[in-house]
Amino acid sequence: MRGAVLYASGDVRVAQRPDPAIIEPTDAIVRLAATCICGSDLWPYRGVEKFDGPAPMGHEYVGIVEEVGSQVTTIKPGQFVVGSFAVSDNTCEICRAGYQSACVQRVFMNAIGTQAQLAWVPLADGTLVATPGVPDADLVPSLLAASDVLGTGWFGAVAAEVGPGKTVAVVGDGAVGLCGVLAAKRLGAERIIAMSRHAARQELAREFGATDIVTERGDDGVAVIKDLTNGLGAHSVIEAVGTQESMMQAIRSTRPGGHVGFVGVAHDVELPGEELFFSHVHLHGGPALVRQYLPELIDLICDHAIDPGKVFDLTLPLDEAAEGYKAMDERRAIKILLQP
Amino acid sequence: MRGAVLYASGDVRVAQRPDPAIIEPTDAIVRLAATCICGSDLWPYRGVEKFDGPAPMGHEYVGIVEEVGSQVTTIKPGQFVVGSFAVSDNTCEICRAGYQSACVQRVFMNAIGTQAQLAWVPLADGTLVATPGVPDADLVPSLLAASDVLGTGWFGAVAAEVGPGKTVAVVGDGAVGLCGVLAAKRLGAERIIAMSRHAARQELAREFGATDIVTERGDDGVAVIKDLTNGLGAHSVIEAVGTQESMMQAIRSTRPGGHVGFVGVAHDVELPGEELFFSHVHLHGGPALVRQYLPELIDLICDHAIDPGKVFDLTLPLDEAAEGYKAMDERRAIKILLQP
Repeated sequence: MRGAVLYASGDVRVAQRPDPAIIEPTDAIVRLAATCICGSDLWPYRGVEKFDGPAPMGHEYVGIVEEVGSQVTTIKPGQFVVGSFAVSDNTCEICRAGYQSACVQRVFMNAIGTQAQLAWVPLADGTLVATPGVPDADLVPSLLAASDVLGTGWFGAVAAEVGPGKTVAVVGDGAVGLCGVLAAKRLGAERIIAMSRHAARQELAREFGATDIVTERGDDGVAVIKDLTNGLGAHSVIEAVGTQESMMQAIRSTRPGGHVGFVGVAHDVELPGEELFFSHVHLHGGPALVRQYLPELIDLICDHAIDPGKVFDLTLPLDEAAEGYKAMDERRAIKILLQP
Repeated sequence: MRGAVLYASGDVRVAQRPDPAIIEPTDAIVRLAATCICGSDLWPYRGVEKFDGPAPMGHEYVGIVEEVGSQVTTIKPGQFVVGSFAVSDNTCEICRAGYQSACVQRVFMNAIGTQAQLAWVPLADGTLVATPGVPDADLVPSLLAASDVLGTGWFGAVAAEVGPGKTVAVVGDGAVGLCGVLAAKRLGAERIIAMSRHAARQELAREFGATDIVTERGDDGVAVIKDLTNGLGAHSVIEAVGTQESMMQAIRSTRPGGHVGFVGVAHDVELPGEELFFSHVHLHGGPALVRQYLPELIDLICDHAIDPGKVFDLTLPLDEAAEGYKAMDERRAIKILLQP
């Protein structure tokens, strides 16, 4: 099969990779209908995150089940499925508590690489969720978003305890931040402040439910959030970047007793303990609990209640993945859908 | 009046200080029945925390109201009161959300210094809570504990979302950690693991409700907690020290999706963002919400339902405060009650 491989920082190419096969009786093979490039793929692409040798890329995926192992009971060939970027058994104590992306058997799909024509999915029953019938083509981008960015924005909003009557600030205007805006809206937030200085992203943020746009960053951004919230800070802040600046911006934008949901993969971040102590914020985040939310998110998408697929503003054939990485790296595109 | 003053690290003396007087119409003056030395007083005493010039010491207090300003309505002279270590108006939006120790008008009582015969208490209506009548002498130590360490252990347990069916680990065997054990027991924890290598403290921990004692520290301590929890970690961990080691011990002892309540005043702590991200723990803490809990804690104490005063294992006249600091610094005493 064809699949994207990162050879060195900045050097992604689509190459011939071996077709996956069932190894364990709990595996499935999925023929991908769509896959995409994630903001987190840029960390190794930019050389910020170390990686070993030529690395297959991608962890987001939707498609038709081609084959399942003998012990797979809920997923069947021919079904259209959405899978979490984190493989989970969905039966261990951690999964049952809703933390499937910390499953005791967790494998991250980026170790497998879904920017390809086929994906090998271990623990298929615990990882994949089938849609009700094969969806229309116009729903595919939104279902693909549910595989990571929508679920990640959603987790950010849940971790930030977004709810009715609350003011929410969103740090980061990538696909995850924008999906955080969408989630905040669905979860009933009263006011949603998107922090963005990029016209197209501001527009999508407003479409997804943002009531205010703040273009300032860092401590200037914090000052504006304070101004907008009677000097107190937001009740809930979704952090969707993962840098030192964005984390501190999120913590400082939150009122005492408020909640920061941080879902940007943290890189070179050190949180000052004393400031955190006196900030009185709640801090929660990590790899999103996509598998927990998938059934609900699939229903919302299939009911046309949400349209997170709008984050894809560029679609390319899989073979042009290199151009996709470049466009995202240069912030020419929010998120790129790849057609295998 | 007589009052303890820190002149230099290691040099605490009880000196003549000016009698406090009503300044604002919302103030009260309290004649102290008892005061005490806090683990957090050791930070400046040990020279770890900077302080300006000769500093009056102490922030825990109970006593009889001597005088109130003209606008004080709920507190009256002659009442026995317990006060939070954090002054609050109890009316601002932050207070109404239960975060009185982050009140927009907050003053920490250690800036005032309650290791003395009298205490000036600003915002008396919002800060002080009167007991039902003047309590018997045997209740005074427990009421004094409610002024900080009990409320702080309680906040640690609440922040760690302690509850029925949960396994709780407590990092730190000082008065706050021990009160965290007591709080965990009252809040219905199924299993309470106290981390202590000190016989007298282990004994009190058991008396307060600990079901297990772990003597190992750091990563060895984490390994034992994991062994005791099916490899997963505790649901709730109360951190009651405030060092890098204790914070990491707390975070690493918590299962994914679990909660760390950190109430040890953080000093020289830097939390690694990436580890925190992948840990999936919830983190919450800070100066305890004593004022929120005081009415409930006073009731429990006056009903003899809890006896947190047992953390005081040495009582000294106020004039011997220097010996008290020495005994706590050398860990010869858990907590010292001073009689003004």
